[in-house]
Parts: sequence; structure tokens; C-alpha cells
Amino acid sequence: MARIVMKFGGTSMAGIERILHVAARVRREADAGNEVLVVVSAMAGETDRLVQLCREAAALHDPREYDVVVASGEQVTAGLLAMTLQNLGVQARSFMGWQLLQASGTHGNARVEAVESRLLDEALGSGTVAVIPGFQGVSPNGRIATLGRGGSDTSAVAIAAGVRADRCDIYTDVDGVYTTDPRVVPRARKLEQVTFEEMLELAGVGSKVLQVRSVGLAMREGLPLRVLSAFEDKPGTEIVERLDEGMERNAIAGIAADRNEARVTLTGIADRPGTVAAAINPLAEAGISVDMIVHAATPNRGASDLTFTVPRASLAQAVAALENWRGDIGYDGLLTDDQVAKVSIVGVGIRSNPQLAARMFDTLAERRINLQAVTASEIKVSALIAEDELELAVRVLHTAFGLDAPAGAAG
Amino acid sequence: MARIVMKFGGTSMAGIERILHVAARVRREADAGNEVLVVVSAMAGETDRLVQLCREAAALHDPREYDVVVASGEQVTAGLLAMTLQNLGVQARSFMGWQLLQASGTHGNARVEAVESRLLDEALGSGTVAVIPGFQGVSPNGRIATLGRGGSDTSAVAIAAGVRADRCDIYTDVDGVYTTDPRVVPRARKLEQVTFEEMLELAGVGSKVLQVRSVGLAMREGLPLRVLSAFEDKPGTEIVERLDEGMERNAIAGIAADRNEARVTLTGIADRPGTVAAAINPLAEAGISVDMIVHAATPNRGASDLTFTVPRASLAQAVAALENWRGDIGYDGLLTDDQVAKVSIVGVGIRSNPQLAARMFDTLAERRINLQAVTASEIKVSALIAEDELELAVRVLHTAFGLDAPAGAAG
Repeated sequence: MARIVMKFGGTSMAGIERILHVAARVRREADAGNEVLVVVSAMAGETDRLVQLCREAAALHDPREYDVVVASGEQVTAGLLAMTLQNLGVQARSFMGWQLLQASGTHGNARVEAVESRLLDEALGSGTVAVIPGFQGVSPNGRIATLGRGGSDTSAVAIAAGVRADRCDIYTDVDGVYTTDPRVVPRARKLEQVTFEEMLELAGVGSKVLQVRSVGLAMREGLPLRVLSAFEDKPGTEIVERLDEGMERNAIAGIAADRNEARVTLTGIADRPGTVAAAINPLAEAGISVDMIVHAATPNRGASDLTFTVPRASLAQAVAALENWRGDIGYDGLLTDDQVAKVSIVGVGIRSNPQLAARMFDTLAERRINLQAVTASEIKVSALIAEDELELAVRVLHTAFGLDAPAGAAG
Repeated sequence: MARIVMKFGGTSMAGIERILHVAARVRREADAGNEVLVVVSAMAGETDRLVQLCREAAALHDPREYDVVVASGEQVTAGLLAMTLQNLGVQARSFMGWQLLQASGTHGNARVEAVESRLLDEALGSGTVAVIPGFQGVSPNGRIATLGRGGSDTSAVAIAAGVRADRCDIYTDVDGVYTTDPRVVPRARKLEQVTFEEMLELAGVGSKVLQVRSVGLAMREGLPLRVLSAFEDKPGTEIVERLDEGMERNAIAGIAADRNEARVTLTGIADRPGTVAAAINPLAEAGISVDMIVHAATPNRGASDLTFTVPRASLAQAVAALENWRGDIGYDGLLTDDQVAKVSIVGVGIRSNPQLAARMFDTLAERRINLQAVTASEIKVSALIAEDELELAVRVLHTAFGLDAPAGAAG
């Protein structure tokens, strides 16, 4: 017997027929003798509808009232799933977010502070499946607070941690975490296991399987996650602290691609302490996140170039800020390029094997793909390249790191 | 300055444009220096949609889960109205039913037990308009409980009583209480004032302006109500303890019509104590409400007839129960008629003037309308007649009691 949290996303809850399918899946876990908690999203499209109503009501609206409106979608699916489970003979009841989950911080993007596990322990102790609306809790002053889009993943992980669940299963419309986007590389392979760190890097750069915050929370809590298909009955991907010993897996978990960046280069900045900070600070002030930062001063030249990337949607704003502060920063020229993309190799093996980065650069060089910038962290190496070379780069790296599925065995 | 509750129904909240109209109306009361609480229904059609989802999820569903699902509609409109008010420059915030209104009894049809007025007093004290979802509260064990269809009227009255409001204004899609249904009698007239008792009788027999329970609660609390149009800016109807002195009003407030009844006659029942009870008890056991009961034994005949009415939808069930208990009741024949209707005159003047009943019977007799049964209470006289004579009966009574509006001045 295990205590498990099952989380179902919006497409799994979109309509009574799908909710019935979800209920059957939950029943199977309950019938196997497990203590089961289910966290649900709103029906697909419902949150968008509610957000649209808020926009029409007031262009600039009170986030506390926004939370009241948009939190209703998960309340509906929680009630519907509870009654559907009962109808299948499963003892079940819904709880509301305000009964269970204390949240704090910004309304509309709140953080989970604590889970009231007593009510849940009671229900589980009496053999009842607990159904919980995702995405929401209650603020210190008693108002409904939502956790931001995709927040149901975070709810599920927080509740799993709060009730000391053995694991948290995220049922979604993909069947696991892949070595790269299968739409780009048909021979992408589903990973049996991936570490939290790898998942964070893969999620952060575009594998939109799980909300990043939920992975970070699971990592801190040491709570194993699984990503599974809500529609098909096959093994998904385990997200774990460290890979099982004896697990045959490549040193590289996957190849991530990100088209969401734009490059900024400041030429002729002075080689003296503080110039990089002077360039980056105006962007931070404007709330623009800066990703890759490359600055290597050439000794004795006195001036050099600074290259970094910003979200493509913030490029115009970034340029305006940099021009505004030109006097303080001190640069000759400001070059930008929004036709760039970032390709990354991600894997815990990078830590112990510097050959992997070299293999990445060799592979790209063989295809004459020019590297505009390179950054590396413990488990990721990223290169900024021209956007029109991105798909080629992903494919050749996928092959070079031995990630291609055997022919005819994709997925 | 007054403390007032404004309640808006589903058609008034059906879409952002109408909510904006409601907000403008609320602002006017707030700008006039009043302390304002607003109770809102779900958008028209939304509760039906949610009820339908519950039916599809499980034919027989847990009423506690039903409450979780259907209560969401008012939560949405409360949040939307609060942000719309803020956008108009009115300080406002929403409260949730579970923060304010303690309810008990059957889920889906709960009773209001208490109102947590402290939170509301605080808001009003700081000049904030409180926006409250109607139709819902929280049960003693902390679960969402709804008050039954139309329950937002009851929420509004309960909250008005709880915060000792000066009055409760019910904004709806009719502009007041009429002497009879204006679709039947074009010269029906809007009443300036009606007493709680009269309103209960008018509501109970078909003038579906206000939930009956809300009127009963306002009467017990001595809280004046007003019924007003949500769409047009004109005086509505006041519902009061007693009519203003010097108020020129007919002794009869209105004529009520009810097509929802069916007649049952048991012939040849014994004239001995207990036979009426023996006939009615099986119906009460089956949850069938019995309305008009007419039984007058003819002295020395030894047997007589018992006539009563039941809701038309329950007729078949009533007949089955009576046949089942025929041995205990003891009757010769069982006659039924579902082509009947009830016409009533309602007015506080009936109490002091027995001539009014006589005038009713005379008026119907002149038109050769046959009375199948007659019952009278303190402020109402009802006659059961053939359904196809109902409209004629309403019209002639409306004229006979001086209720017709002057020609060209209807409404």
C-alpha cells in the first residue's frame, strides 16, 4: 500500500466523458489498496474563458478579485470528479483549496506556505479518496489565492509533500519526458528516468511538460514524480533525485531548443570593474531577465564586447533601457539579433565528463553551424546559433549523443 | 445615510455589459453616502449549465458535491462585479459565502443559521462596498452549502438582517409586484405597497417575483423589501409589515392564478372521526403536499365526499398511494381531474370585510363559472375551477375588485 497523489490536467478533465475516464483510473489505484489524493485542473479552455471575462470587466483588475473568478474552474471539476467516483462505488469527497492550502505572496502568482494535512489524513484514514482543486489556496487574510498558470502541478507536489505521499503522479496529454521535441526529431525517445536537475533545465528551456516551480518544490522535498499519459496506459517518465544505479541511460538526458531569445551585443565597452553590472542593471530594473551573458575581455586591448540574451518579447524594451543609460554604461555600438535560438545539451553526466561539451562543439562545427555565444553550467551546455539552423542542430546533437530511438521503435 | 442591501438576479448579471450597468447602479447608491452590500446571482443560464454537468456526471449525485459545483457561478459574478466597481472608482471587494453565511440542513436546500457580520461591518466602516455571492454558505462541518434555487433572495434578506440593514432592494427582470399576471390581464397594475402576508400568498400561488422563503424571513425580521427593475429606473413595489396609513389601496392586493394543481375526490367515505386523516396520511408519507381540502359531512347521511388538491405532477403517485391504502381509508370511488385551476383573491382587507368573499363568488357566478371547491384563509379566498375558465375568472375578478389600471395607463 502506498499513499499517492494523482494530478490530472485540463485536457484530461475536459467534459464528463473524460472525467469518467479519470475516475476509472483513480478507482484502479484505490482498488489496489492505495491511499489516493487527486488534484484536478479546470476543464481545458475554462480558465481562459474566466481570464477573458476579467479582462472585459476591467483592463486593470484587482488580482484578489481575479483569483476569486478564475479559481472557480477547478472547484467545478473537483465536485464533478468526486460525484463521478462515488457513482463508480469509490468512497470520495472534494475539499476546497481554502480548506487545505495556505498561500502567500502575490495574488495570481502566490506561493504555497503550508498544507493543512489533518483533514486529508482523516479522509485517507477512513478509506476516502480526497479530490482537491489545483491552482489555489487561501491567503493569510482569508482570501482565495491562485498559484499562477500551471499552478496545479505545484498544488499536487505541495499536497504530496504535506501528506508525506510516497509519490506524485502527473497525468498529462503527453506520455512522458522525451530526449527532445518529437515533432522536430521523430526518433526522439521517451526517458525512463530523469533527475530533478535535468528536468529543471529541460523544462526551463522549453519541454513544457511540468510547471518549473513544481519540479523545484519536488526536488527540495525529495518527492519522486512521475509523468504519465492520461489517455494511454503505458509507463511514463520518473523524475528522481538520482538515477537508479545500474540504470542504462546516456550521460545526456536530452537536447533542449529555445526560440524565445534575442541577442544583444554592446561593442567597445571599457575593460574596468563594474561595466558589465552597469549594462545589466538597467535591464533588471525594468524587470527584463537576462539569460546567457558572455564577456571575455582581451588583455591589454582596453575595450571589449559584451553579449547577452533577453526574452525576444522584451527586446525593444531592453534596447530602450540600454540607450537611455548609454552614458552610464559607456559603449560604442549596440547590435541586436532576434533571429537566434539556443540549443542545449542537458545531463548529469556533464559534471564528470568535460568531453561532452567538446563533442557538442565538434558536432556543430562539422555542420558549419556558427556559435554566437556559449554558456555552461554543471549539467547543461548551451550555444546560441542562428534560428534557421536550430532544427539541424537539434537533430545532429540528438544523434551524436546516442539518443536516437532504434529505427521503428520511436516512443 | 442608510445601510442597504442590493440584490441582482441572473438576467442582471448575464454578461460584462450588464454587470457594468449593475455597477453603475451600485455606484449611485454608494455616492449618495449609503453603506452598500450587493448580493449577486450567477449569470443567467450558468446554474442550469452546472446542474446539467452534475446530472451527466452521476444521475444520483451527492448533494454536497452538487453544492461545490453549482456554487461556483455566483463566485464568478461576485469577483467580476467587485473588479468592475473598482474600475468605476468605487472601493469594493468580494466576500465568499463560506466566510459569511452559516447554513444547516439539507445540502442543496440549506437554511441560513447565522451571518458573520463582523467582516462586513469592518468593510462597510471603511467605506467599502461588499459584494457577496448569493445562494450559498457553509455547513457546520465546513462544506459549501447552497440554499436551493432562487436562494439568492434569501441570502440577501439574511445578510440584510444580519447587518441590521435599513432595507433590502431586490433588483429583478420585472419592475415590481402586479395585481395579477400582466400577460393575462393587460390592465394589471403595479402595486406601490404590498404586505408580507399578501406577498407570501401571491408568491405561493404563482407570482414568481421573489423566493417565498425570503419573504417569510423578511417578515420575521421586520425588514422592509423593495422589488425594482434592474433595467429601468422607476419606482418598484415596497413589501412592508403594514400598509402606510393614508395609503390609497384596494382592500384586495391582487388576483392569483395557479395551474399547478389537480383535484382528487374520494366518494362515499364514512362520517366518523379519523377518515380525513386516514386519507391524507398516505400522501404525507409519500411527500405529496395537499393544498385545498374540502370536507363537509351531510348530517344523518352516514357517508360523504372528500375533495382535495395535489400538485399536478404528483397526481399519479397520489392515486397509487390512495389505492394502496383503500382498505384503511374506506371509500367507494376515486375521481380525479387534472384540468382544474385555482383562482384566488389576496388582500389584508379580507380579514375585516366578509363582503369581499361574497363579491368573488357573485362575480364568478355571473359568468357561470362553476366552483369545484372553495377554501378561505385570513387574507385569501381561493376557488377551484375548470382550467379553461381560469383566464376569464382572473379578468372578471380583476375588474370587479377595482384593480384595472385606467385605460392607457397600464403599469
